Amino acid sequence: MKASVKFTVLLVACLLMATAAYAKFAKPEDAIKYRKSVMFLIAQHFKGMGAVVQGKVDYDQQMFGANAEVVRVLATLPWQAALQPGTDNGDTTMSSAVFSKTADFKKTAQAFEMATEKLAQASQGSDFKAIKSEFANVAKSCKECHKPFRTK
Amino acid sequence: MKASVKFTVLLVACLLMATAAYAKFAKPEDAIKYRKSVMFLIAQHFKGMGAVVQGKVDYDQQMFGANAEVVRVLATLPWQAALQPGTDNGDTTMSSAVFSKTADFKKTAQAFEMATEKLAQASQGSDFKAIKSEFANVAKSCKECHKPFRTK
Repeated sequence: MKASVKFTVLLVACLLMATAAYAKFAKPEDAIKYRKSVMFLIAQHFKGMGAVVQGKVDYDQQMFGANAEVVRVLATLPWQAALQPGTDNGDTTMSSAVFSKTADFKKTAQAFEMATEKLAQASQGSDFKAIKSEFANVAKSCKECHKPFRTK
Repeated sequence: MKASVKFTVLLVACLLMATAAYAKFAKPEDAIKYRKSVMFLIAQHFKGMGAVVQGKVDYDQQMFGANAEVVRVLATLPWQAALQPGTDNGDTTMSSAVFSKTADFKKTAQAFEMATEKLAQASQGSDFKAIKSEFANVAKSCKECHKPFRTK
Protein backbone atom coordinates (compact mmCIF):
# COMPACT_ATOMS: atom_id res chain seq x y z
CA MET A 1 0.00 0.00 0.00
CA LYS A 2 1.39 3.39 -0.96
CA ALA A 3 2.21 5.76 1.91
CA SER A 4 -0.34 8.30 0.66
CA VAL A 5 -3.07 5.64 0.54
CA LYS A 6 -2.12 4.42 4.01
CA PHE A 7 -2.34 7.99 5.27
CA THR A 8 -5.79 8.43 3.74
CA VAL A 9 -6.99 5.15 5.29
CA LEU A 10 -5.64 6.29 8.65
CA LEU A 11 -7.37 9.63 8.31
CA VAL A 12 -10.71 8.11 7.43
CA ALA A 13 -10.35 5.77 10.42
CA CYS A 14 -9.64 8.79 12.63
CA LEU A 15 -12.63 10.67 11.30
CA LEU A 16 -14.94 7.74 11.86
CA MET A 17 -13.60 7.12 15.34
CA ALA A 18 -14.00 10.76 16.18
CA THR A 19 -17.70 10.69 15.36
CA ALA A 20 -18.08 8.33 18.32
CA ALA A 21 -16.83 10.97 20.74
CA TYR A 22 -19.61 13.41 20.07
CA ALA A 23 -21.54 14.65 23.03
CA LYS A 24 -25.32 14.30 23.19
CA PHE A 25 -27.38 17.47 23.41
CA ALA A 26 -30.43 17.89 25.61
CA LYS A 27 -31.59 20.96 23.64
CA PRO A 28 -30.58 22.93 20.51
CA GLU A 29 -29.01 25.68 22.66
CA ASP A 30 -26.55 23.16 24.09
CA ALA A 31 -25.47 22.08 20.61
CA ILE A 32 -24.94 25.73 19.62
CA LYS A 33 -22.99 26.45 22.81
CA TYR A 34 -20.95 23.30 22.27
CA ARG A 35 -19.83 24.13 18.75
CA LYS A 36 -19.21 27.80 19.61
CA SER A 37 -17.01 26.66 22.49
CA VAL A 38 -15.05 24.40 20.17
CA MET A 39 -14.67 27.11 17.52
CA PHE A 40 -13.54 29.70 20.09
CA LEU A 41 -10.87 27.33 21.42
CA ILE A 42 -9.71 26.45 17.90
CA ALA A 43 -9.44 30.16 17.10
CA GLN A 44 -7.41 30.88 20.24
CA HIS A 45 -4.88 28.13 19.55
CA PHE A 46 -4.79 28.85 15.83
CA LYS A 47 -4.05 32.54 16.53
CA GLY A 48 -1.16 31.42 18.74
CA MET A 49 0.30 29.44 15.84
CA GLY A 50 -0.47 32.29 13.43
CA ALA A 51 1.70 34.67 15.43
CA VAL A 52 4.61 32.23 15.04
CA VAL A 53 4.01 31.71 11.31
CA GLN A 54 3.92 35.48 10.84
CA GLY A 55 7.24 35.86 12.70
CA LYS A 56 5.72 37.85 15.58
CA VAL A 57 6.60 35.12 18.09
CA ASP A 58 9.67 32.87 18.04
CA TYR A 59 9.14 29.32 16.79
CA ASP A 60 9.28 26.73 19.56
CA GLN A 61 8.81 23.19 18.24
CA GLN A 62 7.25 21.79 21.41
CA MET A 63 4.85 24.67 21.90
CA PHE A 64 3.82 24.75 18.26
CA GLY A 65 3.36 20.99 18.21
CA ALA A 66 1.22 21.08 21.35
CA ASN A 67 -1.01 23.78 19.83
CA ALA A 68 -1.35 21.84 16.58
CA GLU A 69 -2.28 18.70 18.53
CA VAL A 70 -4.98 20.56 20.49
CA VAL A 71 -6.42 21.95 17.25
CA ARG A 72 -6.33 18.49 15.67
CA VAL A 73 -8.43 17.05 18.51
CA LEU A 74 -10.83 20.01 18.62
CA ALA A 75 -11.34 19.81 14.85
CA THR A 76 -13.01 16.42 15.23
CA LEU A 77 -15.71 17.71 17.58
CA PRO A 78 -18.14 20.29 16.21
CA TRP A 79 -19.82 18.47 13.32
CA GLN A 80 -22.52 16.46 15.04
CA ALA A 81 -23.47 19.59 16.98
CA ALA A 82 -23.72 21.43 13.65
CA LEU A 83 -26.05 18.78 12.24
CA GLN A 84 -28.56 19.01 15.11
CA PRO A 85 -31.94 20.09 13.68
CA GLY A 86 -33.02 23.62 14.55
CA THR A 87 -29.55 24.85 15.44
CA ASP A 88 -29.37 27.26 12.49
CA ASN A 89 -31.59 29.59 14.55
CA GLY A 90 -30.79 31.42 17.76
CA ASP A 91 -27.40 32.68 18.96
CA THR A 92 -25.42 31.33 16.04
CA THR A 93 -23.75 32.34 12.79
CA MET A 94 -24.30 28.91 11.23
CA SER A 95 -26.05 29.11 7.88
CA SER A 96 -29.12 27.04 7.06
CA ALA A 97 -27.06 25.81 4.10
CA VAL A 98 -25.68 23.19 6.50
CA PHE A 99 -29.07 21.48 6.22
CA SER A 100 -29.80 22.19 2.55
CA LYS A 101 -26.29 21.23 1.40
CA THR A 102 -25.27 18.69 4.02
CA ALA A 103 -23.05 16.61 1.73
CA ASP A 104 -21.05 19.72 0.79
CA PHE A 105 -20.85 20.73 4.43
CA LYS A 106 -19.49 17.35 5.46
CA LYS A 107 -16.95 17.53 2.65
CA THR A 108 -15.59 20.93 3.68
CA ALA A 109 -15.67 19.93 7.36
CA GLN A 110 -13.66 16.79 6.62
CA ALA A 111 -11.21 18.79 4.51
CA PHE A 112 -10.62 20.99 7.56
CA GLU A 113 -10.16 17.95 9.81
CA MET A 114 -7.67 16.42 7.39
CA ALA A 115 -5.76 19.71 7.11
CA THR A 116 -5.42 19.92 10.91
CA GLU A 117 -4.27 16.28 10.96
CA LYS A 118 -1.54 17.07 8.44
CA LEU A 119 -0.52 20.21 10.34
CA ALA A 120 -0.25 18.20 13.57
CA GLN A 121 1.89 15.60 11.79
CA ALA A 122 4.19 18.24 10.27
CA SER A 123 4.42 20.02 13.63
CA GLN A 124 5.92 16.94 15.26
CA GLY A 125 9.01 17.73 13.19
CA SER A 126 10.99 20.95 12.86
CA ASP A 127 10.68 21.60 9.11
CA PHE A 128 9.28 25.07 9.56
CA LYS A 129 8.72 25.57 5.83
CA ALA A 130 6.52 22.44 5.72
CA ILE A 131 4.73 23.55 8.88
CA LYS A 132 3.97 26.98 7.40
CA SER A 133 2.62 25.31 4.27
CA GLU A 134 0.29 23.03 6.28
CA PHE A 135 -0.76 25.99 8.45
CA ALA A 136 -1.74 27.88 5.29
CA ASN A 137 -3.77 24.86 4.15
CA VAL A 138 -5.67 24.82 7.44
CA ALA A 139 -6.39 28.55 7.14
CA LYS A 140 -7.64 27.97 3.59
CA SER A 141 -9.89 25.10 4.74
CA CYS A 142 -11.39 27.32 7.49
CA LYS A 143 -12.37 29.90 4.87
CA GLU A 144 -13.70 27.31 2.44
CA CYS A 145 -16.16 26.10 5.06
CA HIS A 146 -17.01 29.51 6.54
CA LYS A 147 -17.83 31.10 3.19
CA PRO A 148 -20.80 28.84 2.31
CA PHE A 149 -21.80 27.77 5.82
CA ARG A 150 -21.43 30.83 8.05
CA THR A 151 -23.78 33.78 7.79
CA LYS A 152 -21.29 36.45 8.86
CA MET B 1 12.15 1.62 37.12
CA LYS B 2 8.88 0.44 38.60
CA ALA B 3 5.82 0.71 36.36
CA SER B 4 4.13 3.11 38.79
CA VAL B 5 7.20 5.39 38.84
CA LYS B 6 7.41 5.26 35.05
CA PHE B 7 3.75 6.21 34.88
CA THR B 8 4.29 9.18 37.20
CA VAL B 9 7.28 10.36 35.16
CA LEU B 10 5.19 10.08 32.01
CA LEU B 11 2.36 12.02 33.59
CA VAL B 12 4.61 14.84 34.77
CA ALA B 13 6.09 15.01 31.27
CA CYS B 14 2.57 15.24 29.83
CA LEU B 15 1.58 17.98 32.24
CA LEU B 16 4.69 20.02 31.47
CA MET B 17 4.25 19.56 27.75
CA ALA B 18 0.64 20.57 28.01
CA THR B 19 1.54 23.91 29.59
CA ALA B 20 3.15 24.80 26.27
CA ALA B 21 -0.16 24.55 24.43
CA TYR B 22 -1.85 27.33 26.30
CA ALA B 23 -3.39 30.08 24.31
CA LYS B 24 -2.47 33.71 24.89
CA PHE B 25 -5.21 36.09 25.96
CA ALA B 26 -5.58 39.64 24.69
CA LYS B 27 -7.90 40.58 27.59
CA PRO B 28 -9.25 39.00 30.83
CA GLU B 29 -12.65 38.33 29.18
CA ASP B 30 -10.95 36.08 26.63
CA ALA B 31 -9.32 34.02 29.37
CA ILE B 32 -12.69 33.66 31.13
CA LYS B 33 -14.43 32.69 27.89
CA TYR B 34 -11.61 30.25 27.11
CA ARG B 35 -11.81 28.34 30.38
CA LYS B 36 -15.63 28.38 30.39
CA SER B 37 -15.57 26.89 26.89
CA VAL B 38 -13.19 24.16 28.03
CA MET B 39 -15.25 23.39 31.14
CA PHE B 40 -18.51 23.25 29.15
CA LEU B 41 -16.98 20.78 26.69
CA ILE B 42 -15.54 18.65 29.49
CA ALA B 43 -18.97 18.58 31.16
CA GLN B 44 -20.71 17.53 27.94
CA HIS B 45 -18.32 14.63 27.29
CA PHE B 46 -18.19 13.64 30.95
CA LYS B 47 -22.00 13.52 31.10
CA GLY B 48 -21.93 11.20 28.08
CA MET B 49 -19.60 8.84 29.93
CA GLY B 50 -21.65 9.23 33.13
CA ALA B 51 -24.77 7.93 31.37
CA VAL B 52 -22.83 4.78 30.45
CA VAL B 53 -21.38 4.34 33.94
CA GLN B 54 -24.88 4.69 35.38
CA GLY B 55 -26.21 2.04 32.99
CA LYS B 56 -28.53 4.46 31.17
CA VAL B 57 -26.64 3.98 27.89
CA ASP B 58 -24.96 0.78 26.67
CA TYR B 59 -21.19 0.58 27.03
CA ASP B 60 -19.35 0.89 23.73
CA GLN B 61 -15.58 0.64 24.15
CA GLN B 62 -14.70 2.81 21.17
CA MET B 63 -17.18 5.54 21.99
CA PHE B 64 -16.27 5.59 25.67
CA GLY B 65 -12.55 5.63 24.84
CA ALA B 66 -13.00 8.50 22.39
CA ASN B 67 -14.87 10.53 25.01
CA ALA B 68 -12.22 9.81 27.64
CA GLU B 69 -9.49 10.89 25.20
CA VAL B 70 -11.26 14.18 24.45
CA VAL B 71 -11.63 14.86 28.19
CA ARG B 72 -7.95 14.00 28.74
CA VAL B 73 -6.87 16.60 26.17
CA LEU B 74 -9.34 19.25 27.38
CA ALA B 75 -8.21 18.72 30.99
CA THR B 76 -4.76 20.07 30.12
CA LEU B 77 -6.07 23.40 28.86
CA PRO B 78 -7.83 25.66 31.38
CA TRP B 79 -5.14 26.31 34.01
CA GLN B 80 -3.16 29.14 32.47
CA ALA B 81 -6.44 30.90 31.67
CA ALA B 82 -7.42 30.47 35.33
CA LEU B 83 -4.16 32.07 36.49
CA GLN B 84 -4.60 35.24 34.41
CA PRO B 85 -4.74 38.23 36.80
CA GLY B 86 -8.16 39.86 37.14
CA THR B 87 -10.11 36.89 35.85
CA ASP B 88 -11.78 36.21 39.22
CA ASN B 89 -14.13 39.11 38.39
CA GLY B 90 -16.74 39.36 35.66
CA ASP B 91 -18.80 36.59 34.11
CA THR B 92 -17.16 33.78 36.07
CA THR B 93 -17.68 31.43 39.00
CA MET B 94 -13.94 31.20 39.68
CA SER B 95 -13.07 32.01 43.27
CA SER B 96 -10.36 34.53 44.21
CA ALA B 97 -8.86 31.66 46.20
CA VAL B 98 -7.14 30.68 42.93
CA PHE B 99 -4.85 33.68 43.52
CA SER B 100 -4.58 33.50 47.32
CA LYS B 101 -3.98 29.73 47.36
CA THR B 102 -2.32 29.16 44.00
CA ALA B 103 -0.18 26.21 45.12
CA ASP B 104 -3.28 24.38 46.36
CA PHE B 105 -5.12 25.24 43.16
CA LYS B 106 -2.33 23.84 40.99
CA LYS B 107 -2.29 20.68 43.11
CA THR B 108 -6.03 20.03 42.73
CA ALA B 109 -5.89 20.95 39.03
CA GLN B 110 -3.05 18.50 38.45
CA ALA B 111 -4.90 15.80 40.40
CA PHE B 112 -7.81 16.27 37.99
CA GLU B 113 -5.47 16.10 34.97
CA MET B 114 -3.88 12.92 36.27
CA ALA B 115 -7.28 11.35 36.97
CA THR B 116 -8.40 12.05 33.38
CA GLU B 117 -5.11 10.57 32.12
CA LYS B 118 -5.77 7.36 34.08
CA LEU B 119 -9.37 7.22 32.89
CA ALA B 120 -8.22 7.59 29.28
CA GLN B 121 -5.69 4.79 29.78
CA ALA B 122 -8.26 2.46 31.38
CA SER B 123 -10.75 3.31 28.62
CA GLN B 124 -8.42 1.96 25.96
CA GLY B 125 -9.22 -1.47 27.40
CA SER B 126 -12.56 -3.11 28.11
CA ASP B 127 -12.29 -3.72 31.88
CA PHE B 128 -15.49 -1.88 32.68
CA LYS B 129 -15.04 -2.26 36.44
CA ALA B 130 -11.65 -0.52 36.22
CA ILE B 131 -13.13 2.15 33.94
CA LYS B 132 -15.95 2.85 36.39
CA SER B 133 -13.42 3.17 39.20
CA GLU B 134 -11.31 5.68 37.24
CA PHE B 135 -14.44 7.56 36.22
CA ALA B 136 -15.38 7.89 39.90
CA ASN B 137 -11.88 9.21 40.64
CA VAL B 138 -12.27 11.89 37.96
CA ALA B 139 -15.66 12.90 39.38
CA LYS B 140 -14.09 13.12 42.85
CA SER B 141 -11.23 15.27 41.54
CA CYS B 142 -13.73 17.65 39.88
CA LYS B 143 -15.45 18.21 43.22
CA GLU B 144 -12.17 18.56 45.14
CA CYS B 145 -11.20 21.48 42.91
CA HIS B 146 -14.67 23.03 42.60
CA LYS B 147 -15.29 23.12 46.34
CA PRO B 148 -12.43 25.50 47.25
CA PHE B 149 -12.04 27.26 43.90
CA ARG B 150 -15.53 27.80 42.51
CA THR B 151 -17.90 30.31 44.08
CA LYS B 152 -21.15 28.50 43.20
